[in-house]
Amino acid sequence: MKSIVIKSGRSQDVQFELENGAGSDAVHSTPIYAYALCRLDTDVHVEGVGMALTLGAGNKLVCGAIDYLVRHVVGREINELMAEFGVTYKKMADDPNLRWLGPHKGVVHLALASVVNACFDLWAKSRSQPLWKLLIELSPEALADTLDFSYFEDILPRQEAISLLKDEAQGRADRMGILKQGYPGYDTSIGWFNYTDEQVADNIRRSIDQGFGAIKLKVGSSNPDRDIRRAELVRHAAGPDATIMLDANQQWSLPKAIAICQQLQDINPYWIEEPTHPDDIQAHVTLSKEISIPIALGEHVPNKVLFKNFIQSGCMSFNQVDAVRVGGISEFLLISLLSRKYGIPVVPHVGDMGQIHQHLVLFNHIGLGHPALLLEYIPHLKGYFKYPAQVIGGKYLTPQEPGLSSDFKDYVLEKKALSY
Amino acid sequence: MKSIVIKSGRSQDVQFELENGAGSDAVHSTPIYAYALCRLDTDVHVEGVGMALTLGAGNKLVCGAIDYLVRHVVGREINELMAEFGVTYKKMADDPNLRWLGPHKGVVHLALASVVNACFDLWAKSRSQPLWKLLIELSPEALADTLDFSYFEDILPRQEAISLLKDEAQGRADRMGILKQGYPGYDTSIGWFNYTDEQVADNIRRSIDQGFGAIKLKVGSSNPDRDIRRAELVRHAAGPDATIMLDANQQWSLPKAIAICQQLQDINPYWIEEPTHPDDIQAHVTLSKEISIPIALGEHVPNKVLFKNFIQSGCMSFNQVDAVRVGGISEFLLISLLSRKYGIPVVPHVGDMGQIHQHLVLFNHIGLGHPALLLEYIPHLKGYFKYPAQVIGGKYLTPQEPGLSSDFKDYVLEKKALSY
Repeated sequence: MKSIVIKSGRSQDVQFELENGAGSDAVHSTPIYAYALCRLDTDVHVEGVGMALTLGAGNKLVCGAIDYLVRHVVGREINELMAEFGVTYKKMADDPNLRWLGPHKGVVHLALASVVNACFDLWAKSRSQPLWKLLIELSPEALADTLDFSYFEDILPRQEAISLLKDEAQGRADRMGILKQGYPGYDTSIGWFNYTDEQVADNIRRSIDQGFGAIKLKVGSSNPDRDIRRAELVRHAAGPDATIMLDANQQWSLPKAIAICQQLQDINPYWIEEPTHPDDIQAHVTLSKEISIPIALGEHVPNKVLFKNFIQSGCMSFNQVDAVRVGGISEFLLISLLSRKYGIPVVPHVGDMGQIHQHLVLFNHIGLGHPALLLEYIPHLKGYFKYPAQVIGGKYLTPQEPGLSSDFKDYVLEKKALSY
Repeated sequence: MKSIVIKSGRSQDVQFELENGAGSDAVHSTPIYAYALCRLDTDVHVEGVGMALTLGAGNKLVCGAIDYLVRHVVGREINELMAEFGVTYKKMADDPNLRWLGPHKGVVHLALASVVNACFDLWAKSRSQPLWKLLIELSPEALADTLDFSYFEDILPRQEAISLLKDEAQGRADRMGILKQGYPGYDTSIGWFNYTDEQVADNIRRSIDQGFGAIKLKVGSSNPDRDIRRAELVRHAAGPDATIMLDANQQWSLPKAIAICQQLQDINPYWIEEPTHPDDIQAHVTLSKEISIPIALGEHVPNKVLFKNFIQSGCMSFNQVDAVRVGGISEFLLISLLSRKYGIPVVPHVGDMGQIHQHLVLFNHIGLGHPALLLEYIPHLKGYFKYPAQVIGGKYLTPQEPGLSSDFKDYVLEKKALSY
């Protein structure tokens, strides 16, 4: 465990164009994937790199907020910082100048995610450990010290979180087996919104050949018949045993969601993802009572307080919290703890292309006793990462490099231009 | 009604330092009030000016988003634009590049507020009408055309909103009397967080002398005894008949809120404002069942969907929607309509120092039949506005100048520096 002092911190705006309709959904026809990076320079030859995802134009706004927030960690020794990270997290989340712009949501919260993730990256690198290993070796108290329990006093106070972690020690040795087996992935890339029927059918064959047993189709078309036709096509091509997720990207009103989901039930989907507006807890509650398809959501839920409300409401069957949307790994862990208390599996959305989440789902399974269900697999940016996630036979291989696996190749970071 | 084409649009960052503890609350000890302005230039000698409030450092982020969003209205003729403004509103709110950064919250939504407000300002100026007059003269259908009913299909579809507006035609002539009487104000400036007991007592005397019957005290101290002592002092100084609001600025956990509010009940407050985190609907529901003080909230509720959920939940006694927090006047009106349907009075938070809201509460009363309760009065920036709100004898005089009254004096806009 080296002493490493953060000498300076800065944002960096990196953007990637996607090709041939990849990444398209009911909201985004020609997406750019962009990262607002937080880079922490130190007094030794190691750098912390954190990220938040955006879809292009607004990336520089998130970078602006990173450059402001990062002052809270500059000058700190990383191990001392992380020994009471919950305190610094709260200071950043409640920074009096930026809090008004949220609180705890939107641009400033994405920026917080990037700064928080950079701190965790540097911490893991300072111990020469991949994130998953660092997290499972922390004591329950040390893990709790990285979290900010504000507004969780009524539902998961610190002491209860520690007890939960201690209770989950049982069975932990068995769950370590996942490290050798690999964590099951699911393939998001068979059914982007703009793909033709032929592309989708080809992709399903390729996906099954590669070992995936679970695939996702984008729905949420202005023409419900298109959604239903494509869903039937996917079920037909993938066979009766395949796990098929449907993702509506928030396009339906509640009455529309009820009507269309009642038809989509026939293809026996594993879940319907983001059926309506991501803030509309009551609409999800009503929908969950009207349909038999389980609801997955969380990609756009900004913070622990709204997750708490969704979890309490009983409408959420799968928790898709994303560590590059909420306030980074710290808030992700707190939400995972609450989700465990309520027995709701965490199946993260991977704004990071799975690079960080491959670590987090291993911890969730081993340390918290969450089931090892599935992790989304999106390989679009594989070529740009220094240690891209390795998915073989439909399974994520356990990453071994120190940190969060969120380093980009040098040429990506050296490039001056905003886009590639 | 002149034809006016929007030739260009741009943001402007204006910031004001406050003096001697004014504006301080449990979150902000030394606040700056800043406006991210949207300025719409036209082909004639008239300008549309919209605003969103921030507290300083992040103001330039909102300005960045305004400069991006404003492209949706540049080139449009103002009357044609406003004849179907709901459509353009939705395009801006769902702009594929910026939507990810919300959706409908945080920096991008504040920017939307500023652009939307600039359009309404220009529209009212093009008709040489103050906003309140324009709004009460619109037909129910024309008013509905300025609104985006997405995600309100299950609770207030367009046709129901039009029916509600038509039903409220009854009694309208009587309610016009408010234009002559003036709209009652309440005084927020007696009890800022950093004020001493002596300052508070002096301010109460001054306030009552000026004709205010309603005053607000900031609570939410880390020391509950301070809150209770100050609340008792205010009740003692103001007398048994004064209306006293308490504002906790989100500082309490749910258990703390329950415990402290049960003690504060003794001074018979009119409301407790923002007792806990503004996203925590369930905590507000629980609190509302445990205490007898009515709950006021909305200052930090970002959009119509979360307002819908708060309204449905039954915990909100006073709706404090702010047209410079939600997506401008358009979303404010939609939320006011829903609030009317549920019988919840609208008592706006005035991020605009009441300049725009003095128009909106007149419309809410005359056009929607909301009770004419109270409008917050904060005179800090009076000297900078071209037509500052006139409050005499505790009442807002009806504004007569065309537009939203959100124009600043020329020297404010000409100044190049960010702060004054």
